[in-house]
Amino acid sequence: MPLAANNPDRISWLHVGKNSDFPIQNIPFGVFLTRDDIITIGTRIGDTAIDLGALHQLGYFEGIPLTDDIFLQDTLNDFIADGRKTWRLVRNRIAEIFDKNNTTLQSNKKHKEIVLFRLDEIEMQLPVQIGDFTDFYASREHATNVGTMFRGKENALMPNWLHLPVGYHGRSSSIIPSGIPIHRPQGQTIPPDSDTPVFGPSKLVDFELEMAFITTDANDLGESIPIEEAEEYIFGLVLLNDWSARDIQKWEYVPLGPFLAKNFASSISPWIVTLDALESFRVTSPKPLKSQLPYLQYKGKKSFDINLEMAIQPKNAKEKVVCKSNFKYMYWNMAQQLTHHTVNGCPVNSGDMMGSGTISGPTPDSYGSMLELTWRGENPIKMKDGTERKFINDYDTVIMRGHCENDDVRIGFGEVSTQLLPVFKPKKKK
Amino acid sequence: MPLAANNPDRISWLHVGKNSDFPIQNIPFGVFLTRDDIITIGTRIGDTAIDLGALHQLGYFEGIPLTDDIFLQDTLNDFIADGRKTWRLVRNRIAEIFDKNNTTLQSNKKHKEIVLFRLDEIEMQLPVQIGDFTDFYASREHATNVGTMFRGKENALMPNWLHLPVGYHGRSSSIIPSGIPIHRPQGQTIPPDSDTPVFGPSKLVDFELEMAFITTDANDLGESIPIEEAEEYIFGLVLLNDWSARDIQKWEYVPLGPFLAKNFASSISPWIVTLDALESFRVTSPKPLKSQLPYLQYKGKKSFDINLEMAIQPKNAKEKVVCKSNFKYMYWNMAQQLTHHTVNGCPVNSGDMMGSGTISGPTPDSYGSMLELTWRGENPIKMKDGTERKFINDYDTVIMRGHCENDDVRIGFGEVSTQLLPVFKPKKKK
Repeated sequence: MPLAANNPDRISWLHVGKNSDFPIQNIPFGVFLTRDDIITIGTRIGDTAIDLGALHQLGYFEGIPLTDDIFLQDTLNDFIADGRKTWRLVRNRIAEIFDKNNTTLQSNKKHKEIVLFRLDEIEMQLPVQIGDFTDFYASREHATNVGTMFRGKENALMPNWLHLPVGYHGRSSSIIPSGIPIHRPQGQTIPPDSDTPVFGPSKLVDFELEMAFITTDANDLGESIPIEEAEEYIFGLVLLNDWSARDIQKWEYVPLGPFLAKNFASSISPWIVTLDALESFRVTSPKPLKSQLPYLQYKGKKSFDINLEMAIQPKNAKEKVVCKSNFKYMYWNMAQQLTHHTVNGCPVNSGDMMGSGTISGPTPDSYGSMLELTWRGENPIKMKDGTERKFINDYDTVIMRGHCENDDVRIGFGEVSTQLLPVFKPKKKK
Repeated sequence: MPLAANNPDRISWLHVGKNSDFPIQNIPFGVFLTRDDIITIGTRIGDTAIDLGALHQLGYFEGIPLTDDIFLQDTLNDFIADGRKTWRLVRNRIAEIFDKNNTTLQSNKKHKEIVLFRLDEIEMQLPVQIGDFTDFYASREHATNVGTMFRGKENALMPNWLHLPVGYHGRSSSIIPSGIPIHRPQGQTIPPDSDTPVFGPSKLVDFELEMAFITTDANDLGESIPIEEAEEYIFGLVLLNDWSARDIQKWEYVPLGPFLAKNFASSISPWIVTLDALESFRVTSPKPLKSQLPYLQYKGKKSFDINLEMAIQPKNAKEKVVCKSNFKYMYWNMAQQLTHHTVNGCPVNSGDMMGSGTISGPTPDSYGSMLELTWRGENPIKMKDGTERKFINDYDTVIMRGHCENDDVRIGFGEVSTQLLPVFKPKKKK
């Protein structure tokens, strides 16, 4: 099926600003609460949110095999489970409806009042019910930086790292959309030169600049997904800030991996940009440094050139961009990750989320965490208000952005913005 | 509220065999498919399954605040979310309905035909939709055995182990109820004296004898659960066989923990036995060997005396019990686990599952995995058909059982039984 929705020459009758992440070629999917307190599935063109539930009720998706309530839901899981053919039909139809040469909806004032929303009239929700969250560790620069800090340059990468995309299970219940503030976590940490832990607020709260992909139903228990089919099961991508408490992590993570250091919060951008929308931004993955087993070998371009940045905004001050990275730096691409994940027969379902792990680039300003940017706090970063940051302070807002751009079009993700509040104080019981 | 359902003197008008795990004092909850292909929530007395959806429709729960469809669902999540007060009202009412001194249902032949099922008429399902699965590592004997194998006796326990219940995130999508066969997983392993991995079927598939508890909605993002409240949020327990591929694990698990070595399957028993039903079997937890931080300190008995065993049944042969352990051996109890899990503000929801980790006891016949029982395969176990096992063979069925017993009553879990089939062979595509 041709990706007609990607036609770079198409112009929408909805206003799209020059540097918008959301031209008519994007057509991402999200879930929002409307001014009438109704939850619906929608898309976005420029700064206009579009209620797909209402559009469907008004008959605009006629001819596409969709259940009546597919967009009248509080998650995208069922729509995603409909599969790639349906996603493409819907994206193509939306492109047609909002094409400036199509007057059907454009000239129907009553319908437009029902279907269109200003961004300040809606509240974005988590787009999917995430069944399982897996986080990979797929950036060689990041793994090397962290390994160098903890084990020295010679032993930076573990023996398995160049042979498989290392991954581990994360927590679904603490994944939140952009805009929800979080609290500084408490926990056990080990003071220097002590063998007895202390309890208190984490002193080393950090962001991790990541991307994550959302899957559809892929396989049953016991079955594997061949690498050449893997991308068929990837619905789209979001920005992911995988919050981390470095001091909690250091004490707890042996031998089973990070746990409370990670599961207090992971923030994602609310619009899922489809893999189809990113088609023009495919690039070659980094060249393997060691030969890879046949099940991980693939043909073609399976990485994506997506510019990523992270900014810190202290309370009542201007933000400072502290990191500029790119999704293309990932050593292991998404197809390899998904194939590896299922090679043992682990089932992948609609709404599962798989994170890239921190994406660090080759230069120090492209490192995807404060741990690396300040090199464990040795080189603090100056904010625009003159204060310094080794890690994240209370009341700081951390903002991640991402977009692709070529001569024809810019496809973006918007942002994921999360404020860190002090440790939660429970209310006194009555 | 008194736990009237636990009254040891009550006798049911339904037949209960002498050594049944399911006397009228148990009243576990599960989900099953009936002879009419309807999914319903039910309980079990003796070898009779009871359709709670039908009982509710017939008015037997009058006066208890329940929505009309609370038992007409394919998971227990909503019922669990109703909270402990409701669970107790329902258990008490079921005890009354099936008390031999109560003739209401007993003498209503038509109602009994609707409500009661023989076990061979139903098919047990997964009782909950598991949002997040956490697995702890809470048996000191197990952690010591595994640590001794890999790091020697002196360094067996990691420095953090006596200070916190080590845990990590598991995979929800591969949790299956008793009776579903699994396939031997494939993956990367590292041959001895090689630095290059090979791909193929795992040669060291193992069981792990565990128990798991199922939670209700406990806290919002950022909030912690004090240890004295923790048990309020525990609905009940199941048996858990946490399948493991030791050779895959050894190669992949550094530094983020086990991943594909675990997520190919975890099997649970289908009836959730409530924490209330286990009330008479409380015992003191093992004495702490190091002082514990205040948030992990508690009063009273928070461990449970539950006899556990694991058996291996080769194809066409009699089973052999290879391990007898007990839930009371866990160094860190469930209240400590749940409190630790939320101390950083991680939200716990209805239907989350938390495993104990392998429960090994002090004697070699109480070790909860083949890894420990055969000490890495050095001491194979003889089966009843004369064959030997270092780990699990293709076509073996692994069966875990558990029950509590005192002079008055026996409360049990039934079993979780899972056959290991050879590596999955995909069907040729047409």
